[in-house]
Amino acid sequence: MKNTLLVYLLLASSAALAQPQTKSLTVNQQRIGTRLMELAKFGAQPGGASRVGYSKADQEGRLYFIGLMKKAGLAVTVDYAGNIIGRRKGKNPALKPIGFGSHIDTVPNGGNYDGTVGSISGLELIDILNENNIVTEHPLELLIFANEEGGTIGSGAMIGKVTPAALKAVTQSGLTMADGIRAIGGNPDSLPQMVRKKGDLAAFVELHIEQGGILEKENLQIGVVEGIVGIEDWEVTIQGTPNHAGTTPMNNRHDAMLAAAKLIVAVNEVITSHEGRQVGTVGKIAVEPGAYNVIPGKVVLGMEIRDLNYDKIWSLFREVEGRAKEIAKVSGTTISFRQPFTPVTPALTAKPIQDKIIGATKGLGFSYRMIQSGAGHDSQEIARIAPVGMIFIPSVGGISHSPKEFSKPIDIANGANVLLQTVLALDRE
Amino acid sequence: MKNTLLVYLLLASSAALAQPQTKSLTVNQQRIGTRLMELAKFGAQPGGASRVGYSKADQEGRLYFIGLMKKAGLAVTVDYAGNIIGRRKGKNPALKPIGFGSHIDTVPNGGNYDGTVGSISGLELIDILNENNIVTEHPLELLIFANEEGGTIGSGAMIGKVTPAALKAVTQSGLTMADGIRAIGGNPDSLPQMVRKKGDLAAFVELHIEQGGILEKENLQIGVVEGIVGIEDWEVTIQGTPNHAGTTPMNNRHDAMLAAAKLIVAVNEVITSHEGRQVGTVGKIAVEPGAYNVIPGKVVLGMEIRDLNYDKIWSLFREVEGRAKEIAKVSGTTISFRQPFTPVTPALTAKPIQDKIIGATKGLGFSYRMIQSGAGHDSQEIARIAPVGMIFIPSVGGISHSPKEFSKPIDIANGANVLLQTVLALDRE
Repeated sequence: MKNTLLVYLLLASSAALAQPQTKSLTVNQQRIGTRLMELAKFGAQPGGASRVGYSKADQEGRLYFIGLMKKAGLAVTVDYAGNIIGRRKGKNPALKPIGFGSHIDTVPNGGNYDGTVGSISGLELIDILNENNIVTEHPLELLIFANEEGGTIGSGAMIGKVTPAALKAVTQSGLTMADGIRAIGGNPDSLPQMVRKKGDLAAFVELHIEQGGILEKENLQIGVVEGIVGIEDWEVTIQGTPNHAGTTPMNNRHDAMLAAAKLIVAVNEVITSHEGRQVGTVGKIAVEPGAYNVIPGKVVLGMEIRDLNYDKIWSLFREVEGRAKEIAKVSGTTISFRQPFTPVTPALTAKPIQDKIIGATKGLGFSYRMIQSGAGHDSQEIARIAPVGMIFIPSVGGISHSPKEFSKPIDIANGANVLLQTVLALDRE
Repeated sequence: MKNTLLVYLLLASSAALAQPQTKSLTVNQQRIGTRLMELAKFGAQPGGASRVGYSKADQEGRLYFIGLMKKAGLAVTVDYAGNIIGRRKGKNPALKPIGFGSHIDTVPNGGNYDGTVGSISGLELIDILNENNIVTEHPLELLIFANEEGGTIGSGAMIGKVTPAALKAVTQSGLTMADGIRAIGGNPDSLPQMVRKKGDLAAFVELHIEQGGILEKENLQIGVVEGIVGIEDWEVTIQGTPNHAGTTPMNNRHDAMLAAAKLIVAVNEVITSHEGRQVGTVGKIAVEPGAYNVIPGKVVLGMEIRDLNYDKIWSLFREVEGRAKEIAKVSGTTISFRQPFTPVTPALTAKPIQDKIIGATKGLGFSYRMIQSGAGHDSQEIARIAPVGMIFIPSVGGISHSPKEFSKPIDIANGANVLLQTVLALDRE
């Protein structure tokens, strides 16, 4: 008992001493840049990388990264889903770990910043703490999630979302998800045993490129993410009557293409007629029979609505449905909707973590704005079991998932410094 | 000289005698029906036939038909394009022949009436003249054109339109056009030698099913065709910017699909905002990259405008082009037009032949209307070298190019009777 008290007192005093010191810590911009370059060699493509989850390039990139983590003194394990977990002990073993990190897989023919910026900056955080002999109160966990681009598979598995059916699906690596997980050292049969519960993590913070053009356009350094939008997709089938495009008078047509065109315009009108940052897209279309000289009999559309607010998505959809009914009536077609995928529920970031990110940003003298993430991230999965925060940095031209994806070294360093100060602030709580 | 005069006098009196007799002639509805059934056996499909030009079924159907023509006493030849020509002598060798007929090939999985009605009714006309010992003033030519459904190839060759390049194209029979022509007894290398000049035919009359629903809807027995519409096709390319459907705000998109949808609606508005029977169709669409979560970067449309008046087609197109410019400006896209095929020039029927058809129709007590043909026909080719006329009969449900294609036996017989009386009236001129 006495000894324990003594330890606590010593820890408390060292923490008090550390506080002014940690606020002046800054990351090594050069080192981050070098590691981004080195990681880019795995699956290198002109200007970018193809390091698809579970592929050979992914496997090699992971080994490189695990090497760096071990060199940084982390206790590295790979969980059943293939997530790489690097643990650093804290002073207080009673505290739950603070997590941070991202992913290092890419889309096919992708870029060198999506995911890697957050992963390498998380490692940089560890290196800076090491170099300054700082031990945090909380244990720390650097989490490198597996196959994020395949649909947040590693983080999804961590919250128990990956189904046995999904394991049979063929991934973009060419392997089934089960075989892919095996290829990176996981065990698909044991996924249920790795599921984390609410409270297992004290917090999770992810640094990521914006993948949009808002920060660049507004000339801001940091985006404090309010949440990750929900995604609802609909397959829309417009059934008309195919007929001869020469002999069928205009007033005697049930043209599925014309009805589809009116619906695409209506979707845009519905989405843009409301205040807010909701987005709606028709990205897919197929027509039957599809010839110059035949009035289309059937059109199938792929439609998507995203927003931070689940109810708003559905109220927008109901409005689209209403417009579809009118269009179907006027054109003599039928229009039906079906949801082909499991929807993504909106994930809000934790207000206290947002505040810590804002505090760190202000402390470093950076400009910022609140922002929502229109893209999916591992954080949206982890938000189900822990309070999460996300830090965005500018993407040049708003481009991502492309070899043209680029973020400036100084912006990356700024983001890494905000991540570092946010984690230290969370630890001080 | 004396003898010749005597012959002329005799001919004149026999013609005078024949006139009241020919007006009471009627076709044998039963025989027409039987022959339609027999021809339907070649390439038979449930409810219809696949007798694609140059195919084995086409070759066998042609042999059956040539047999009937020979039995009817016609002098049968097959020209270099494979057109079957059955000649019947007239009293006056100085007169040019009056032609009539159609085609007996079908689209894949087609019906039993398109083309065959005009072909079998033309043969019926010969049989009726034979049975009544009538010899016309003009020679007669029953013309069965080769591969109409492949793009009026036989009739096109007759006016010198088939190019050496076209001969290399693979037809729906699987054969190149050159090999196809050989397979039905033609000679693709000699096509230039078979070209007919203006004046080689006194007239050409084609009986055909309407392939639209106007006559049936208006409960009319005969359509007197004013002309065969011209067809102009455009491939329309809308170039926008592909981008992330989640992270790109609505006011920062250059959505090629939205612009395409507005254009499809605009095409319909332009076509329907003018008086007349013009039709405009967007029957094809392709989108890139074509995913739920990507704003379309590129859309390619297939657009078609048809009308009897060439200038009107182009004035409508200029209006569409104007609307496209506005849409491109507002959406930050570019829209370009290109004509992928050789356009079909409108072909007007000859007013004097229209009058003869109207006279025959009235004489038989049938109801009729003037009508335009929205579909292409051999007559549109022959119109370049001879005055042509076309007689339409109702298509049930307006359906064609389908096993569901159907015309009632009485309507077919009515059409054949109008054809018979029209040819006799032309001969009396």
